[in-house]
Amino acid sequence: MRVACAQYAVRDGDREYNLRRSEAAVRDAADRGVDLVVLPELANTGCDLDGREPATSLAEPIPDGPTARLWRKLAEDHGICIVGGVLERGEDALYNSAVLIGPDFLVCYRKTHLWDREKLLYKLGTELPVFDTPFGGIGVLVCYDAWFPEAVRTLALRGAGLICIPSNLPDDWVPENQRRGDLTMLNVHAIAGANANRLFVAAANRVGDGYLGRSCIIDPTGGVLVLAGATDEELIFADVDLSRARREKSLTDLSHAHGDRNTGVYGATL
Amino acid sequence: MRVACAQYAVRDGDREYNLRRSEAAVRDAADRGVDLVVLPELANTGCDLDGREPATSLAEPIPDGPTARLWRKLAEDHGICIVGGVLERGEDALYNSAVLIGPDFLVCYRKTHLWDREKLLYKLGTELPVFDTPFGGIGVLVCYDAWFPEAVRTLALRGAGLICIPSNLPDDWVPENQRRGDLTMLNVHAIAGANANRLFVAAANRVGDGYLGRSCIIDPTGGVLVLAGATDEELIFADVDLSRARREKSLTDLSHAHGDRNTGVYGATL
Repeated sequence: MRVACAQYAVRDGDREYNLRRSEAAVRDAADRGVDLVVLPELANTGCDLDGREPATSLAEPIPDGPTARLWRKLAEDHGICIVGGVLERGEDALYNSAVLIGPDFLVCYRKTHLWDREKLLYKLGTELPVFDTPFGGIGVLVCYDAWFPEAVRTLALRGAGLICIPSNLPDDWVPENQRRGDLTMLNVHAIAGANANRLFVAAANRVGDGYLGRSCIIDPTGGVLVLAGATDEELIFADVDLSRARREKSLTDLSHAHGDRNTGVYGATL
Repeated sequence: MRVACAQYAVRDGDREYNLRRSEAAVRDAADRGVDLVVLPELANTGCDLDGREPATSLAEPIPDGPTARLWRKLAEDHGICIVGGVLERGEDALYNSAVLIGPDFLVCYRKTHLWDREKLLYKLGTELPVFDTPFGGIGVLVCYDAWFPEAVRTLALRGAGLICIPSNLPDDWVPENQRRGDLTMLNVHAIAGANANRLFVAAANRVGDGYLGRSCIIDPTGGVLVLAGATDEELIFADVDLSRARREKSLTDLSHAHGDRNTGVYGATL
């Protein structure tokens, strides 16, 4: 299975441009034999929208809005899976969502950890599903979700072999002289989550306007299969075998990444 | 508060040498004005002991064995706190333990995640306590414990501002071309845990005989305050303000590292 992350500059509020850009990214991925491509968070609208009114007017129903329709068509035409962020107009509220679309399926995840002023705009998601796909179990998180190891662990325990993370990460808050090489904190959480849970992680971040890029694909050892730069638009990809996520849960004859959890000692509030 | 990690070569089975070496490390730390120094895992015996018999004969009661007695005296003489790993002979079994000793207190933690054949030798710890010290709440984990983000989270939720991690990490399993710069997986888990929980982490690892070194002290942003090399004996230290661990839980007016946990969506088995 070939997995890709499309790292590009999303334009805040410019849905027409963003849909064209996402289409180019998906076609590029398909040309390179990619089976599943991850796009950034809120890939239809961007995340800096100047309040509720423009957000509401740009929000789209799923599956019947223009973005989900376009991506479904691309998935059908190219036999490819697409994971991408969508500002969703739900039945009762706006959601910071991500869809996972294949040639013959469409499922949706709603961000379960909202960052800062997102709380004023979006309703919080209430589920952390693992989607059963022809490639195996796939989970989706959105950006700040990845800072919560419980979320990654929950998806792992529910059978995810790959976690896709559409992101819009603009800042790390780590003082410059304390950063390690070319890794953002999104990368660190991706590596730690992949290693602790022995699964693959593919995180697609935005670039431009101060967004940090460094999209990455991580393997179940915590190894970095591919890491994008900080500024340029790039399509990164890697060939992965999702069955490793199941097989490599066993670390030795006696050690197991999930079996070694000592659930009796963790806090009841966990 | 000045925190240090003493990275040195522990000799398997040679308690006399190991006690002398730990004493030199503590004196060195005291000379540099250190308030708390972290020593490696199983600093009295090493971890490669060729079976139950030599392990049992080297094991020591706590607080009345030679190692705890020596460290208590050093703590008293130098007004310093010491965290270090001890092969403990408990009332009912052997434990891979770590003590936290100050001039007027001694507490003990028993490793709650045993690696591989450690399971054949040691009994599993049943508690993840946070110790109330003059510097604030301090938690202790031992090596492989740090691969379990639930353990770090539990200590954080219980009020730890600093987590000390005595370690004997010999291998990462990450293919060489997939490693990131100078970071071991212990470092990655330390950074991710510090950042997700907004607290300090001080991990002291062994060097020599293939052990990976790279002891580190991490701040609540996930920033690396200091990182040791991979091979040499070193004392690394940093000045830390544990109150940051409480203050910096608030990320913005609306975001909070623990308050943003969405406990309703995580798995019941977590």
